[in-house]
Amino acid sequence: MKKALIVYSGGLDTTVCIPLMREQGFEEIVTLTVDVGQPEADVRQAADRAREMGCEHHVADVKEEFAAEYCAPAIAANADYFGYPLSTAIARPLIAKKAAEVAHAVGGVDAFVHGCTGKGNDQFRIEFGLRLFAPDIPILAPIREMNLTRTWEIDYAERVGAPIGQSKEKIWSIDENLWGRSIEGGRLEDPNYEPPEEIFQWTASLAAAPGEPETVEVEFRAGVPVRIGSVSGTPLQVIAEANSLAGKHGVGRIDIMEDRLIGLKVRENYECPGAVLLIAAHRALEALVTTHAERAFKAQVDAQWAELAYQGLWWDPFMEDLNAFIGQVQRRVSGTVRMRLFKGGMTVLGRDSDWALYSEAAASFDDTTSLEQSQMTGMVRTHGLESLLYARLVRRG
Amino acid sequence: MKKALIVYSGGLDTTVCIPLMREQGFEEIVTLTVDVGQPEADVRQAADRAREMGCEHHVADVKEEFAAEYCAPAIAANADYFGYPLSTAIARPLIAKKAAEVAHAVGGVDAFVHGCTGKGNDQFRIEFGLRLFAPDIPILAPIREMNLTRTWEIDYAERVGAPIGQSKEKIWSIDENLWGRSIEGGRLEDPNYEPPEEIFQWTASLAAAPGEPETVEVEFRAGVPVRIGSVSGTPLQVIAEANSLAGKHGVGRIDIMEDRLIGLKVRENYECPGAVLLIAAHRALEALVTTHAERAFKAQVDAQWAELAYQGLWWDPFMEDLNAFIGQVQRRVSGTVRMRLFKGGMTVLGRDSDWALYSEAAASFDDTTSLEQSQMTGMVRTHGLESLLYARLVRRG
Amino acid sequence: MKKALIVYSGGLDTTVCIPLMREQGFEEIVTLTVDVGQPEADVRQAADRAREMGCEHHVADVKEEFAAEYCAPAIAANADYFGYPLSTAIARPLIAKKAAEVAHAVGGVDAFVHGCTGKGNDQFRIEFGLRLFAPDIPILAPIREMNLTRTWEIDYAERVGAPIGQSKEKIWSIDENLWGRSIEGGRLEDPNYEPPEEIFQWTASLAAAPGEPETVEVEFRAGVPVRIGSVSGTPLQVIAEANSLAGKHGVGRIDIMEDRLIGLKVRENYECPGAVLLIAAHRALEALVTTHAERAFKAQVDAQWAELAYQGLWWDPFMEDLNAFIGQVQRRVSGTVRMRLFKGGMTVLGRDSDWALYSEAAASFDDTTSLEQSQMTGMVRTHGLESLLYARLVRRG
Amino acid sequence: MKKALIVYSGGLDTTVCIPLMREQGFEEIVTLTVDVGQPEADVRQAADRAREMGCEHHVADVKEEFAAEYCAPAIAANADYFGYPLSTAIARPLIAKKAAEVAHAVGGVDAFVHGCTGKGNDQFRIEFGLRLFAPDIPILAPIREMNLTRTWEIDYAERVGAPIGQSKEKIWSIDENLWGRSIEGGRLEDPNYEPPEEIFQWTASLAAAPGEPETVEVEFRAGVPVRIGSVSGTPLQVIAEANSLAGKHGVGRIDIMEDRLIGLKVRENYECPGAVLLIAAHRALEALVTTHAERAFKAQVDAQWAELAYQGLWWDPFMEDLNAFIGQVQRRVSGTVRMRLFKGGMTVLGRDSDWALYSEAAASFDDTTSLEQSQMTGMVRTHGLESLLYARLVRRG
Repeated sequence: MKKALIVYSGGLDTTVCIPLMREQGFEEIVTLTVDVGQPEADVRQAADRAREMGCEHHVADVKEEFAAEYCAPAIAANADYFGYPLSTAIARPLIAKKAAEVAHAVGGVDAFVHGCTGKGNDQFRIEFGLRLFAPDIPILAPIREMNLTRTWEIDYAERVGAPIGQSKEKIWSIDENLWGRSIEGGRLEDPNYEPPEEIFQWTASLAAAPGEPETVEVEFRAGVPVRIGSVSGTPLQVIAEANSLAGKHGVGRIDIMEDRLIGLKVRENYECPGAVLLIAAHRALEALVTTHAERAFKAQVDAQWAELAYQGLWWDPFMEDLNAFIGQVQRRVSGTVRMRLFKGGMTVLGRDSDWALYSEAAASFDDTTSLEQSQMTGMVRTHGLESLLYARLVRRG
Repeated sequence: MKKALIVYSGGLDTTVCIPLMREQGFEEIVTLTVDVGQPEADVRQAADRAREMGCEHHVADVKEEFAAEYCAPAIAANADYFGYPLSTAIARPLIAKKAAEVAHAVGGVDAFVHGCTGKGNDQFRIEFGLRLFAPDIPILAPIREMNLTRTWEIDYAERVGAPIGQSKEKIWSIDENLWGRSIEGGRLEDPNYEPPEEIFQWTASLAAAPGEPETVEVEFRAGVPVRIGSVSGTPLQVIAEANSLAGKHGVGRIDIMEDRLIGLKVRENYECPGAVLLIAAHRALEALVTTHAERAFKAQVDAQWAELAYQGLWWDPFMEDLNAFIGQVQRRVSGTVRMRLFKGGMTVLGRDSDWALYSEAAASFDDTTSLEQSQMTGMVRTHGLESLLYARLVRRG
Repeated sequence: MKKALIVYSGGLDTTVCIPLMREQGFEEIVTLTVDVGQPEADVRQAADRAREMGCEHHVADVKEEFAAEYCAPAIAANADYFGYPLSTAIARPLIAKKAAEVAHAVGGVDAFVHGCTGKGNDQFRIEFGLRLFAPDIPILAPIREMNLTRTWEIDYAERVGAPIGQSKEKIWSIDENLWGRSIEGGRLEDPNYEPPEEIFQWTASLAAAPGEPETVEVEFRAGVPVRIGSVSGTPLQVIAEANSLAGKHGVGRIDIMEDRLIGLKVRENYECPGAVLLIAAHRALEALVTTHAERAFKAQVDAQWAELAYQGLWWDPFMEDLNAFIGQVQRRVSGTVRMRLFKGGMTVLGRDSDWALYSEAAASFDDTTSLEQSQMTGMVRTHGLESLLYARLVRRG
Repeated sequence: MKKALIVYSGGLDTTVCIPLMREQGFEEIVTLTVDVGQPEADVRQAADRAREMGCEHHVADVKEEFAAEYCAPAIAANADYFGYPLSTAIARPLIAKKAAEVAHAVGGVDAFVHGCTGKGNDQFRIEFGLRLFAPDIPILAPIREMNLTRTWEIDYAERVGAPIGQSKEKIWSIDENLWGRSIEGGRLEDPNYEPPEEIFQWTASLAAAPGEPETVEVEFRAGVPVRIGSVSGTPLQVIAEANSLAGKHGVGRIDIMEDRLIGLKVRENYECPGAVLLIAAHRALEALVTTHAERAFKAQVDAQWAELAYQGLWWDPFMEDLNAFIGQVQRRVSGTVRMRLFKGGMTVLGRDSDWALYSEAAASFDDTTSLEQSQMTGMVRTHGLESLLYARLVRRG
């Protein structure tokens, strides 16, 4: 008797996989929904459908782990893939890891099954994690491998009586977790189409956002947000509050051009209110405590981190190296940042840290080194020495 | 009879230089004010004071040149020194160049004089330009070399009857040009002090900004903005309109930590409405027409450009190399971007270009190459091959 | 009647393609051998075999074009993919381009055919070029798509009477062109296996190399080598002479770990005597004429160039951008470099250029700026200001 | 009674400082020679001269500390400042640190004194270290501040009877420590002057080097060399043996253009046999155990490390970040590398590590993932997708 473990969201693609796998001889179907902060209704619907179809259903609530071990490092790295805070991207490795854990716990799993298509990024992220944590279990991706279309899937589901709800009217493809929400598909792909207000659920419209600005203080310890306003707590609690606060003011809508792993350029819309708020505050604090060269180079380290995270290579040795660099910087990223939220915009009003490399004394040259401004003449005169030599050569003709 | 050319703003520091130079035996004083878009009243006041003090006064109106040859390249490079669009920085080289031209035209100049202190960046920028274009003329910087303080300067000005106006009450140090406005000094240096509303003059307060969003279209040709809304024209005209539009909506206030050339970290406030608007639009268009690797690397090229521009090394050979790269990219940066301005915030609503690397056909795999999603399996399976090998080694223990 | 154009080397893989294509219904077979400087015997053998098998055979001698348009830019970019001067990599795009040209000239070609396997890099390089220059012609890769093995191919060739010579004894897989020679396969893949002397043909063994050092002068104009020793001429002539000279002294053997496009790490052996000599000389000259920041950043530009060249993305827009940067630098890379060759080693003995940023006067501070060393105190005192502040914070505990 | 501590090498510049400081009222002179591996005769001569002149002389033997805490990290970072393994640069911070320690131990020191001129790099490196570890003690640099010339110094030394030996005939300026030897000055500054054989003392001439190649195995544990040939031991012992072995074969001569901290380009000659050998072996091992992206980026991390080390900013927080990255990579840099040394040249013959990311199985696709080459078609077809789109736009005209 063959057993398949389906990484199950409850949506059309993964629901269709259940009868498909049965047709391929997998009599036992284990479904797993990993709760990374998607709407509770989605988690419940997945459980209902899985049980309705006679699967052994598992739910793994990893919200705390996701916040502490995935979102917090993303803040430390100022997660930014060309404007995208990597919300879906950093959840996939954890989902794959949990799937491998459940497969080992359940035992006897002959195949993993996921519902990704062949055009997206998630196939790379999920399969990498599965292959890493359960290298001996084959992976099946029926939607991709059978070249299925949405229409075929809906017809098939109706034919076999799989519960897919009102999916036919669905226009947008949504993915949600604690770190953000992505809305794709249809006309949204056109880079010049203005996204309709209806696609947003976490962030208030400009009209609906409060008419008064709100100032909020974010506190970090060693790069981790430990308090926002009056809410102190775990990363999960702070991120949830950040989502709520920033979302209320319409902060966190993202509309960008993105380059997918297979080389396609696409337009993407996200709403990541908490991520946008917390990363902006984190950046402001880092700017206060890092040296000039350190700050300039960390931008490159962060860019590499974002590339790896986008690719889902969460356990790559290079990721460990980057995290070692980033972690060393974070030791000093403690302090507070005051932000003003208003009508979709956000401003840093002030920042404070015991590790600030700002010194009133140094800034005013009133220092133990008793530096006098007259001593700077030599430095000014040597500024651009090689450039001046070059200019002389150019003039020479 | 010795002759000095003073790079003259009409402010305290440079006004004090006039009698100081006379005391040092410079009987003839030529003053030069370079009009890069500062308030007309400032240009007039400088002329009045210079003439009152018996100087041969020159005014060079370089606004068109500044917009076309300095601001436009800054847009192409997405000018960004840790958040600062380099407004003061890119004007200094042009001021120095004009000073050298005037010195050569006037003839017989024995010394350049500028009013920079020994703590700032402008001494590096100005002297580099002067030395480059007029290497044979010595440069004097009395404020720096004589270690003068503001109090001493005011007392001295009163003693010798130099016209310095109400300078004693002046709290902020302001620099203005077409590309932006900087406000420094006093309590503003404290990173945690919230800047008072009064320091801003180009950008509306959140309260005063219009209650309705405004959508504006920006058009670029080969990286140069040629139209904003209904205003087409030279870079000067487009930038002026951008300042006006973005300023009206309170867009363009900048509050950052900055690392000065001598190694000091300081807090800086700027308002650069036009720069912020035009660079955001330019970035959005570049994202549409560049490949993934190109885009990632141009961020590094731009960062190097910003470092050189901040240092004032405008004619460095490296700057020419970077501009060659940037210019090659710009050939395709033609098209339009729609932006929404509202209450200090700004959103990209859409972008369009004949050079877009977005293709509806490619995105839907409906292509002459007739790529099927089932063919992607191999790519997914090789994703992270070296990482997987590494994980195997780690597990081996 | 269907027509196929085979990119034909005359080796086993491509020879087998001829009958295979016939079996798939391609009655007309056009073969093309592109002469990029491989041994003349190979070019002749390919022609003989193609004609023996009744193909319409074409030879394109592109050696001058290859040297001027592919090798010369590689010198300007100091071509270096982790030690590999990209000899095979930069020939593939040109081969694909010629194949597309011949296909258009011949007319009626229904398919391109190449002999690459699914593990190597050349499939990516060749297909990219074909698809770019002839997007409407499908590409077939029978060895990859039919999952053929070497043994199967040999048996098949014997069965159908295809002329493959003594191929069964062949141990190493060789690729040769003007820019270098690669030797792969068998035990050579083991990173710890010492390559036997017999694999090398272009470079003398340490024992056989002359007992006396030889000094040679290389002259560049705008980054292009125009003379080596007494041989002036086209890039082709200079590279040929460089291969001969460096090879005689055993210079140019390369033994590295390389990361292939599909993510495999492999050990590779090359001999690229001319490339190694010319690039070393070019680097030495660049070091003389570039500023510090320019030189440091060009290393990154060159690294990006090498990545793209390795991937075969010769006509990528990013490649054009990089070449714009590199070309701007090359304007000054004129002058001579003296190198000593001896027993597999190479040393720069001197370099000279009208664009040298070295100035005896500046180096001795004996300059028009009359800089005195006592003026440097201020610069020294501000060195590492932010670091010192950091140290003070650390000590504070 | 004022007390000065002179960082004392025994050479002309620092010897002259002794009477100069006495003239400035420092009655007590403490001299310190830090033994970082310079010739024993130099250490002895310094002691003799210091005592002859009535100073309280100290010697700090820090060779083991220098090897383990400064040279070993340099190996991990593949220390390379445009060809220079940073031999003098990494010794200066340690010398300054020891000077601060001695000053604190001795007590009552009113000033540090060093003999650096205003044109070199060492003034930056030494003063940074002194200021960091003893911020309250002023620093005097009489040669720089009094603008002294060599001739003046010699005359003065003779006048006051300071023991300076035959210094007048000295042509080259030498600096030596365990990690290498630099030779500067006179005609050597001319980039086109071939250095005479006489300047080299650690490396055999091509003629004098053995007529037979020698193969040597270097073993690393976590990035640290622990054995070379048959010599196992501390970093000091391994580096000493590497100097001896490589020097015997004439390996390690370096002739480069270098950009000094004040912006001057100069020609420099070094001989660093051990450094060159150990770093080449270390690089070869890193290439075996790192992923492609990791390896490409570590080159940038190493370049930043080299910049900071060149500047002497050994305790900069950015240096700590870089070392965290580098240290994470080093965990896997364990294994052996076989190198052949011969007549000034060096070749890697093989490398082996338990952490090799090379797998015979993966390389031959004979893997648990049972990847077939036919599955690679999709990856090949998507290769350069955006480039192809670009090409289509270009053709469109």
